Amino acid sequence: MRLTVYLAGEIHTSWRDEIKQQAKDLQLPVDFVGPMEDHDRSDNIGEEILGEQPDKIFKDAAASSLNNLRTEILMKKSDVVMALFGEQYKQWNTAMDASAAVAFGKPLILIRQENHHHPLKELSRKAHVTVESVDQAVLALKYIFE
Amino acid sequence: MRLTVYLAGEIHTSWRDEIKQQAKDLQLPVDFVGPMEDHDRSDNIGEEILGEQPDKIFKDAAASSLNNLRTEILMKKSDVVMALFGEQYKQWNTAMDASAAVAFGKPLILIRQENHHHPLKELSRKAHVTVESVDQAVLALKYIFE
Amino acid sequence: MRLTVYLAGEIHTSWRDEIKQQAKDLQLPVDFVGPMEDHDRSDNIGEEILGEQPDKIFKDAAASSLNNLRTEILMKKSDVVMALFGEQYKQWNTAMDASAAVAFGKPLILIRQENHHHPLKELSRKAHVTVESVDQAVLALKYIFE
Amino acid sequence: MRLTVYLAGEIHTSWRDEIKQQAKDLQLPVDFVGPMEDHDRSDNIGEEILGEQPDKIFKDAAASSLNNLRTEILMKKSDVVMALFGEQYKQWNTAMDASAAVAFGKPLILIRQENHHHPLKELSRKAHVTVESVDQAVLALKYIFE
Amino acid sequence: MRLTVYLAGEIHTSWRDEIKQQAKDLQLPVDFVGPMEDHDRSDNIGEEILGEQPDKIFKDAAASSLNNLRTEILMKKSDVVMALFGEQYKQWNTAMDASAAVAFGKPLILIRQENHHHPLKELSRKAHVTVESVDQAVLALKYIFE
Amino acid sequence: MRLTVYLAGEIHTSWRDEIKQQAKDLQLPVDFVGPMEDHDRSDNIGEEILGEQPDKIFKDAAASSLNNLRTEILMKKSDVVMALFGEQYKQWNTAMDASAAVAFGKPLILIRQENHHHPLKELSRKAHVTVESVDQAVLALKYIFE
Amino acid sequence: MRLTVYLAGEIHTSWRDEIKQQAKDLQLPVDFVGPMEDHDRSDNIGEEILGEQPDKIFKDAAASSLNNLRTEILMKKSDVVMALFGEQYKQWNTAMDASAAVAFGKPLILIRQENHHHPLKELSRKAHVTVESVDQAVLALKYIFE
Amino acid sequence: MRLTVYLAGEIHTSWRDEIKQQAKDLQLPVDFVGPMEDHDRSDNIGEEILGEQPDKIFKDAAASSLNNLRTEILMKKSDVVMALFGEQYKQWNTAMDASAAVAFGKPLILIRQENHHHPLKELSRKAHVTVESVDQAVLALKYIFE
Repeated sequence: MRLTVYLAGEIHTSWRDEIKQQAKDLQLPVDFVGPMEDHDRSDNIGEEILGEQPDKIFKDAAASSLNNLRTEILMKKSDVVMALFGEQYKQWNTAMDASAAVAFGKPLILIRQENHHHPLKELSRKAHVTVESVDQAVLALKYIFE
Repeated sequence: MRLTVYLAGEIHTSWRDEIKQQAKDLQLPVDFVGPMEDHDRSDNIGEEILGEQPDKIFKDAAASSLNNLRTEILMKKSDVVMALFGEQYKQWNTAMDASAAVAFGKPLILIRQENHHHPLKELSRKAHVTVESVDQAVLALKYIFE
Repeated sequence: MRLTVYLAGEIHTSWRDEIKQQAKDLQLPVDFVGPMEDHDRSDNIGEEILGEQPDKIFKDAAASSLNNLRTEILMKKSDVVMALFGEQYKQWNTAMDASAAVAFGKPLILIRQENHHHPLKELSRKAHVTVESVDQAVLALKYIFE
Repeated sequence: MRLTVYLAGEIHTSWRDEIKQQAKDLQLPVDFVGPMEDHDRSDNIGEEILGEQPDKIFKDAAASSLNNLRTEILMKKSDVVMALFGEQYKQWNTAMDASAAVAFGKPLILIRQENHHHPLKELSRKAHVTVESVDQAVLALKYIFE
Repeated sequence: MRLTVYLAGEIHTSWRDEIKQQAKDLQLPVDFVGPMEDHDRSDNIGEEILGEQPDKIFKDAAASSLNNLRTEILMKKSDVVMALFGEQYKQWNTAMDASAAVAFGKPLILIRQENHHHPLKELSRKAHVTVESVDQAVLALKYIFE
Repeated sequence: MRLTVYLAGEIHTSWRDEIKQQAKDLQLPVDFVGPMEDHDRSDNIGEEILGEQPDKIFKDAAASSLNNLRTEILMKKSDVVMALFGEQYKQWNTAMDASAAVAFGKPLILIRQENHHHPLKELSRKAHVTVESVDQAVLALKYIFE
Repeated sequence: MRLTVYLAGEIHTSWRDEIKQQAKDLQLPVDFVGPMEDHDRSDNIGEEILGEQPDKIFKDAAASSLNNLRTEILMKKSDVVMALFGEQYKQWNTAMDASAAVAFGKPLILIRQENHHHPLKELSRKAHVTVESVDQAVLALKYIFE
Repeated sequence: MRLTVYLAGEIHTSWRDEIKQQAKDLQLPVDFVGPMEDHDRSDNIGEEILGEQPDKIFKDAAASSLNNLRTEILMKKSDVVMALFGEQYKQWNTAMDASAAVAFGKPLILIRQENHHHPLKELSRKAHVTVESVDQAVLALKYIFE
C-alpha cells in the first residue's frame, strides 16, 4: 500500500525537501505532491498562459485560477495532507488548504511552532495531529505503516 | 424566504453591527449568526466550562473545542457565509472558516481591502463574490432578494 | 406541503408570469424563484456593486459572480427546477442551470419546442420530464399534488 | 501519477487531435476520453442498437440514452474536464457536460473565443480556468505536472 | 416533531386508508404522501399531458416520467418509507421504491405476508423493520414517538 | 433558531431529566430526543410488535430493528448529539451512536467521568467537546446561543 | 481503461455466459462480477456458515445477510450495472439491485422483453438504457469503448 | 480483484493471525490492515512523537490523535471491515470503529460470542453479517470470491 501526501504551506523554505529526504531514508512507500514551489512562476503563471492582465489584481486572479486548478486535482489524489505554518507571511493559503483538506475528509497533520498555538488553536483542534517539527510529522507518517 | 448568514472574521471591530444595521434598514429577511464576539470569553470558555488547564496550549485546545462546536452548528444552519479580513492579526480562523464554507457548498462572500488582494488571491477565486467593503457585501445580499 | 420551484431560462419573454398565473389559478401551493429578470440589471450588477471594471470581459466576470451567487442560493432552496429553452439566444446559462439541477439531485422539468429536440436530446434524457409548453409544465407540477 | 482528461465539446473540428498531439509532444502522462466523435454514429446509435424508432424525436431519445451512458461512465473516470465552445451550433451538450463536471467536483478548463465571453460569463466563473485556445489549455494541463 | 411518511406499494387495495385511519386514531403527528392511487390516471398521465404517443411502450415511457417526477419529489420530503408487497402483480415498482429509499438513507419499514419471505429476503435484510401487516407497521411508527 | 439535541447513552439513570431541567431553567431554545428510556419496553418491543421469537437472540434482533429505526429517524432530525458514558454496563450502543453521529457530521458532546478517559481516548478525540458532567454539557450547549 | 460490470438478475438461465462470451469475442476490456449463481448455495449459505436456523424465515434471513454483503462489495467495485428481467420468478432482487445501482450513481443498462414494458416502465425511465436482449446490451457496452 | 480488509477490535489476543493464516491457506486475494497491535506502542505513541504530556489524560489525548489518524487512513482504503468483540475490556474503540464503518458505507462483518448478543443487538442489526467465530468470518469473506 502506497500513500500520496499533499504538502501544503509556504514555498520559501526547504521544509518539503527535508520531509522527502527523511521519508526516503525511512523507505516509506509514499509519493509527495504539492503546490508550485517556484514562487515567481506561481505568481506569473496567469499572465504566462493567458497573456497580460489589466492590473495586479487581475494578474493575481489569473494566477490563482491555475494554482487552484493544480491544488484541487492533486489534493483529491491524496490520502493525507500535511500543512506547515512558518514564521513569516500571512499564509492564508495554508489555512485555506488545511481547512479544505478537513472538509474533504482528508486526514490533516498540522505542523506549527509552539508560538503559533494561539492563532491556530481552532485549526489545530480540527487536525488529526498537530506537531511542532517536520521530524515529528515524518514520525506520524511512519506510524501509519508500522 | 428567509436566509441565514454566517459572519466569519475578526471580532475586534464592529463590522458585524454595520452589516446588521444596513440589512435592517433595507428590511432584508435575513438572520445573522457568527462566532462568539466577546474576545475574552472566546479565549477563556474552555477553562470556564472544563476547569483550569495545565498551560496556555491546553487552555487554547479546550477553548477551541467549544468554539469549533459553536461554529460548526451555526455554519450548517446557514445559507451563505460572509468572511471579512481586516488589517490586523493573523486571521487564520477566518481563512479556515471561509474555506470550510466553500467545501461544505455554502456560497461565500469575501470582504477584503484591496491591499490584501495578493495573499488572498486563491481564496478570492474560490469565493462566489469578492468585495472591498461591508457596504458592497450588503448590496450583494440585497441582490439575492430582488 | 409547499414546494419551491426554480424557473431557469431566458429572461426576455414573459413565460415566468404565465406559469405563476396558471399556478395561482390552480391554487397550487408553490413558491417560485429564479434569476434576475431585469436584463440590464443582470448585466450591470457587477459594476454597480464593485465599481467600473477594465473592459467588457471583466465587467461580465464581475456580474456573473453575483448572478451565480444568487442562482446557487435560490436553487439550493428549491425542490424542483423548470428550465425553458426559447427560440433565440445561445441560452448556455439555461443548459448550465438545467444540468446543475440534475447533478444536485433536483428533479428537472425541461420545456422546449419540438424543433429543438435534436440539440437538446441528451439533456432531455437527463430531465425527469420534457414538455413543449408552459401549460404542460404546470400540469406536471399539478400532478405532484393530486 | 497519470491523469484522465475528458474532452467535452463539439465533434465537427479536429481540436481534440491538436490537444492530444501537443500533450504527446510534451510527454504529459495523461489519457484522453470523450464523446463519440463520429457524428453520424452518435446520431444513429440508438436505432443501430435498439432498432427503428417511430419518428425523429424518438430516434434522438434512443441515441441520447446511449450517449449519456457513455459520457457518464467516462466522465466519472476523469480527473479533469476540458470543454470547448466553437463558433457554430447550439452546443447545449457542451454546456450541459461542463456544468455536470462542476457539479460532480471535476475541475473544469473552459476553452472559448473572446467573442463568446458574454453568453458564457456565468459558466466561465464556475470553471477553474477559462482560456481562449487549445494551446493555452494544454499549458494549463502541463502546469499541473511541473 | 412531525414526520412525513411515504407509502410505497400497490394501488389496487385500500391499505393506505387503513394506515391513515389508524395513525389518526392514535393521533400520531404524521403526514402521508405516496404515488398516484388512481390507477388509470397513473397509466394515462403521460398522454394526458404530452399528447398521444406512438404506441403502448412510448405511452408507458411518458407516464413513467411523470410518475418518477412525483415519487422523487415526495420521497425526498419524507423521513421514513413504508413499502407494502401484496399478493398480486409483479410489484417491481415497489421493490424499486423500497431499494431507492434504502440507498437515499431513508429508513424503510417493509410490509409483506409471511409467504413472501423467500423472494423478499434480501430486501428484508436491508429494511430497518419487516412486518407482516399494516397494524404492525403503524405500531412501529407509533414507537418512534413514545 | 431552535436546535434539536439527541441524548445518547444509558437509560438506567435520570441524567436526561437533569439536562432537560437545566436547559429549561436557562430557557435554551432546544428540543430533546433520544432512545426509548423504558428499559423493558426497549428490550421487548420486537416481540410486542412482531410476536414471539424463537429464542433470546432472535428476540434481541427483533427489538433492535425497531430501536435502530427509532434512533436513525431521530438522530437525523438532530443538530447535535450528546453521549453519556456511565459507570456500569457495556454501553456499546452509546459508543455506536456517538460514532455514527461523528460520521454523519453531527457535532458530538461526549460526557464521561475522568476514570474513563483511557478506554474512551479515541472517541474523545473525535468528539467536538469532551466534558465530565451533565452540568458542563449544558454549559457547552448554552455557549452556542450566546 | 478497463471497466467492471455487475450483472444483476435471475440465476436460472445462462444469460451471463452469453454476455461474457460476446464480450470476449469482441475483446472488450471488461471484468464481470455478480451474485452467487449456484442457486442452492445462495439459498443455503446462511446455514452453511452460521449453522442451522430455527425455521425457513430465519434461514432466509441468514442467507440474505451474506448475499447482501457480497452484492454490496461487488457493486461498489463496478462502473456499470446490467440488470436482466426474465420470464419467470418474482425477481424483486433484480428490481432492488437495479434501483440501488441508480441510487448509488452507477449507470444502469436494463434488459427486458418487450412484454414486460408495462410493469417496468418506471424503472426503465430511471435506467440509462433499456434494451430487449443480451446482444443489444453487449453492443451498448461496446459503444463505450469506441 | 483484490479486497482490503480492516480488522477492528482488541489487540490482546492473536485473532488477527488466525484470520490471516486461514485466508492465506484459502488463497483469498485479500490484504489486511488494522490498528497498531503493540499495545504499549499504541498507548505511548503520543509522548514518543510529541514529547512528555502534563498528565495521563493528555498523554491519552496525544496517543489517540495518532491512532485515529492511522485508523482513518487505513479504513478509507478498505473494502470491508471485520470487528471482533472479545471477552474482556470495554472495547468502546471496537464499537466506535464498527459504527464508523457502517456510517462510511463500508460493509461490516461483526464477530462476537453468543453471550454478547444482548449488548450488541443494535450494532449486530447494522452489520451486514454477524458471526460467532473467526472461522465463520473467513468463510463469509471466501463467499465473496466464489
